[in-house]
Amino acid sequence: MHHAIDFIQDLAVIMLLAGIVTVIFNRFRQPVVLGYIVAGVIIGPYTPPFALIHDEKTIGILAELGVVFLMFSLGLEFSLRKLARVGVTAFVAAITEIVLMLWIGYEIGRFFGWKAMDSIFLGAMLAVSSTTIIVKALDELGMKRERFAQLIFGVLIVEDVLAIGMIALLSGIAISGQVDAGEATFTLGKLLLFMVVSLVVGILLVPRILAYVAKFKSDEMLLVVVLGLCFGFCLLVIQMGYSVALGAFLIGAIMAEARELHTIERLVAPLRDMFSAVFFVTIGLLLDPHVLVTYVWPILVITVAVVVGKIVSCGLGSYLSGQDGRTSMRVGMGLSQIGEFSFIIASLGLSLKVTSDFLYPIAVAVSVITTLLTPYLIKSADPFTGWLGRAMPGRLSYVLGQYTQWLQSIQLTGDSATIVTIVRRIVVSVAINLALVVTIFLGGAFFYRRLAELMKPWVSDPSLQSAVVWGGALVLSLPFLIAVYRKLKSLSLLLVELSVPPSLTGRYTFQVRRVVAEILPIAAMVGVILLVAALSASILPSTEMIVLIVAGTVVLAILMRSWFVRMHAKLQIALKETLEHQPDGEHGGGGSSSH
Amino acid sequence: MHHAIDFIQDLAVIMLLAGIVTVIFNRFRQPVVLGYIVAGVIIGPYTPPFALIHDEKTIGILAELGVVFLMFSLGLEFSLRKLARVGVTAFVAAITEIVLMLWIGYEIGRFFGWKAMDSIFLGAMLAVSSTTIIVKALDELGMKRERFAQLIFGVLIVEDVLAIGMIALLSGIAISGQVDAGEATFTLGKLLLFMVVSLVVGILLVPRILAYVAKFKSDEMLLVVVLGLCFGFCLLVIQMGYSVALGAFLIGAIMAEARELHTIERLVAPLRDMFSAVFFVTIGLLLDPHVLVTYVWPILVITVAVVVGKIVSCGLGSYLSGQDGRTSMRVGMGLSQIGEFSFIIASLGLSLKVTSDFLYPIAVAVSVITTLLTPYLIKSADPFTGWLGRAMPGRLSYVLGQYTQWLQSIQLTGDSATIVTIVRRIVVSVAINLALVVTIFLGGAFFYRRLAELMKPWVSDPSLQSAVVWGGALVLSLPFLIAVYRKLKSLSLLLVELSVPPSLTGRYTFQVRRVVAEILPIAAMVGVILLVAALSASILPSTEMIVLIVAGTVVLAILMRSWFVRMHAKLQIALKETLEHQPDGEHGGGGSSSH
Repeated sequence: MHHAIDFIQDLAVIMLLAGIVTVIFNRFRQPVVLGYIVAGVIIGPYTPPFALIHDEKTIGILAELGVVFLMFSLGLEFSLRKLARVGVTAFVAAITEIVLMLWIGYEIGRFFGWKAMDSIFLGAMLAVSSTTIIVKALDELGMKRERFAQLIFGVLIVEDVLAIGMIALLSGIAISGQVDAGEATFTLGKLLLFMVVSLVVGILLVPRILAYVAKFKSDEMLLVVVLGLCFGFCLLVIQMGYSVALGAFLIGAIMAEARELHTIERLVAPLRDMFSAVFFVTIGLLLDPHVLVTYVWPILVITVAVVVGKIVSCGLGSYLSGQDGRTSMRVGMGLSQIGEFSFIIASLGLSLKVTSDFLYPIAVAVSVITTLLTPYLIKSADPFTGWLGRAMPGRLSYVLGQYTQWLQSIQLTGDSATIVTIVRRIVVSVAINLALVVTIFLGGAFFYRRLAELMKPWVSDPSLQSAVVWGGALVLSLPFLIAVYRKLKSLSLLLVELSVPPSLTGRYTFQVRRVVAEILPIAAMVGVILLVAALSASILPSTEMIVLIVAGTVVLAILMRSWFVRMHAKLQIALKETLEHQPDGEHGGGGSSSH
Repeated sequence: MHHAIDFIQDLAVIMLLAGIVTVIFNRFRQPVVLGYIVAGVIIGPYTPPFALIHDEKTIGILAELGVVFLMFSLGLEFSLRKLARVGVTAFVAAITEIVLMLWIGYEIGRFFGWKAMDSIFLGAMLAVSSTTIIVKALDELGMKRERFAQLIFGVLIVEDVLAIGMIALLSGIAISGQVDAGEATFTLGKLLLFMVVSLVVGILLVPRILAYVAKFKSDEMLLVVVLGLCFGFCLLVIQMGYSVALGAFLIGAIMAEARELHTIERLVAPLRDMFSAVFFVTIGLLLDPHVLVTYVWPILVITVAVVVGKIVSCGLGSYLSGQDGRTSMRVGMGLSQIGEFSFIIASLGLSLKVTSDFLYPIAVAVSVITTLLTPYLIKSADPFTGWLGRAMPGRLSYVLGQYTQWLQSIQLTGDSATIVTIVRRIVVSVAINLALVVTIFLGGAFFYRRLAELMKPWVSDPSLQSAVVWGGALVLSLPFLIAVYRKLKSLSLLLVELSVPPSLTGRYTFQVRRVVAEILPIAAMVGVILLVAALSASILPSTEMIVLIVAGTVVLAILMRSWFVRMHAKLQIALKETLEHQPDGEHGGGGSSSH
């Protein structure tokens, strides 16, 4: 009882002060996030009169819930459809930004003589802009519907995905203690595989579950199921060695494809608002103002680096991908701050015990300053572009003009554009199917011991056991392998059609095409089998066995080909349908829970 | 980090299982609350395969949040206006029920040879029905809009208030270890005073704060301020020695008078649903199935007692206050179960370490059985009434018929009804003003030491210090004292008018009335001053001082009478306006928080 009172007291202090500060900051049109951080500093242990928080551990756990709900909400706003729409610009700008800022951050860290791990984390902290702060700022300036705002949201989505990858990578680096190119590639590949597989499986399952639950028309039930799936998936992701943030974001992105999206967003919003308030206040709690005085120079240098670096990188990225100068400048100015992701990365470094204590307050300080600057920067984008146009040397503006013209001239139109679209679609489809095959074999290897244990009463010979598991994985993969084969065949037909002009082979054209079109996919399939064999090395049976199994499977594939194709088509249609559903407007699920 | 993972894991297990069980229970049309409890038993430490919860302490804290949000939501649904409308029936039925069930529970406990404290807590557990379960059951039966349902809700509101009193009283009894009539009266009086004062002050302040915050049209901001006020008030209530449950209920009832009520309800609902799920699951966690086997007889006896006792007491209460037989039976049948309040009281006993361990599982078991019975009982109310009508001995039904007729004959109509209304209004007004006066003096006594400390540089003589504090309290109370005097004067005028008929005193009528009308309020005021003096005994200055102060105050009162009256009128109007505001429909505060 007494413990609970301590906790209620802490929560009361946090929420009361958060409430007061929120009102004050809103009154003076400053982002509320800043207010929360200031509230945290006020009640924190470093500022007089005294520490107002008794049960830091429990408050820390609530802050962790804040991260979960923040990332989950971000995932809900993420959408594969939206991502496809913003296209090239978002990718180019986000990648330019992250690479440049990682490098700048690292160099600044080394310049101040910090150790390598601090410098790497500093780079990662500077790499990603703050969705919360940008949305807030654009909202207050009334610019949310403008074109450059849409581009900014696209960049933010790509950044979120890349940041998730960065978090996974940083955890790996922190544990192994070094950056190993092979290791990094492997980690990223594993992460990509995990993300693709959970998105595919999740989008097949979760919206169906939610649609079933929504039929009961109870908000309470829907919320409990949504939270069950959210925390359940987070648990799975933690068990796989990734961060809670990744899990919450992914399950959010999966639920973004559900028809009940708007109801879910409405139900989760209060949870996010409450716990993210706690999260931002705890950031303030951890902030020791003395550190700010000690590290005033790094803070100023990093602030300038963030503002200038992001304007240049995002602006340049937008410009290079074909936006006009004015829009590019606005995108760059809008993205020039750091926020919640930087705090998440900073606390990752702290909890892994690989970064120094001063990194966190520096990140907070830089975030506070850049957040305050954001609205002014956005407003000054247009005047600055005008000034830049006048001040730029004639030679440079000539080059830039030429670049824009050249970019427009290479834009694909008509037939070529259609072909590129078809090829891209086939490549994506093959990649997804291969990812599922790889996952099945990795799963087989992972559960091998347990499966072997189960088989013991019937099959006791280890070599036979591995043959059963490996063969089972192969049969399970058949629908996807057949799909890959079919896609590759149509791809090679298309490529042959384009690349072997009739003029070259004369009357043999048809036969040559035929042979090439058959050889290419078969060669690719052999490659796939070799890849799979390599991945499942730990459960690979003897060579004779493999030959036997592969032969049997090929016979099975040929015999039941049409059944496998039908099954795969069903799965594909289900996936497509889910992705193409527009989320409904809120359909009143309030019935029984309105009390 | 590892700690947070444990916690996320616990939450994942709880929410996942809660989600699954919710769907199953909804599918078979059983109350979800039952499902949560079952889920708790499944993951609990007493059932195989193994304990699935690692961090029981943190989960316990989240369950505490569940109590806060449950009671807060209950408070939001409570409304002084609604309470006034259901009137007499709700009061008679609720009081009959609570008194009878307290007694039955106590007797059952003694019958099974349990110690006195266990028996008292058992009685308290059986006294209050479950709002959640009744609302759910009536909703599913499609009977929520019927007349008897409105009566049931009225009874539930009165029960909630009385239960809050019971919780405060039980805490007192548990600490002092005995039931002392004087002590109990004092405790209840103090509680009533605290409730009246916080309602009056709260209703004057809180809706104004919320209206100001709502102007910013941000759901996030409104929610944070609401939570700040909620937890802040809970903290105050805890500091005063009452339970969190009381605090949450009271601040909810205060916010029920705000214009933004519907927005607040929508924002708080997800928080309540999430944390009440955790609360009910933890109830299951605490349930040891072996105890149920051991205590199978008490459970059965108590179940029968709850069903029969509540049907009789609530039904009789409704009938005695003038409802017809069919409606009374429906009210009785609808209220015949126990639920969340019983758990709250059971955990109160456990946390105060005054009850035995077996009481909690018994309460849970009885709640589960009676909850399952509720829908069937409601459905069988009409057939049962019919059967009862036929089976009742002729003599009894004659008496009951006579009672109904007599009751109708004494209903006040016309002038007398108006007079009763006026008198009631004056009495309520006097009571509220007196409560505020008493609070000011108690506050003066409470803060005396601190005030004296502040005064030291100017007034060092302790007797002068107490004179200043006491006098200050008297001056502060003046507007309320003047209001009491004015109200009493008009009351006595009215009473005199009614009770001294002209026929009795002939031509002196006017003078007699005049004297009586002047003497009565002055006598009453002397009584008030004596009461106040008794309450503020610890800061009472010397007799000469008192005479001096009182005389001075009387002069002040006479001189500034009109100013005081105006100030009081302003306060009164503000209070009335807030109470008479209808809450608006949801006005979209979604603007900036829709992202």
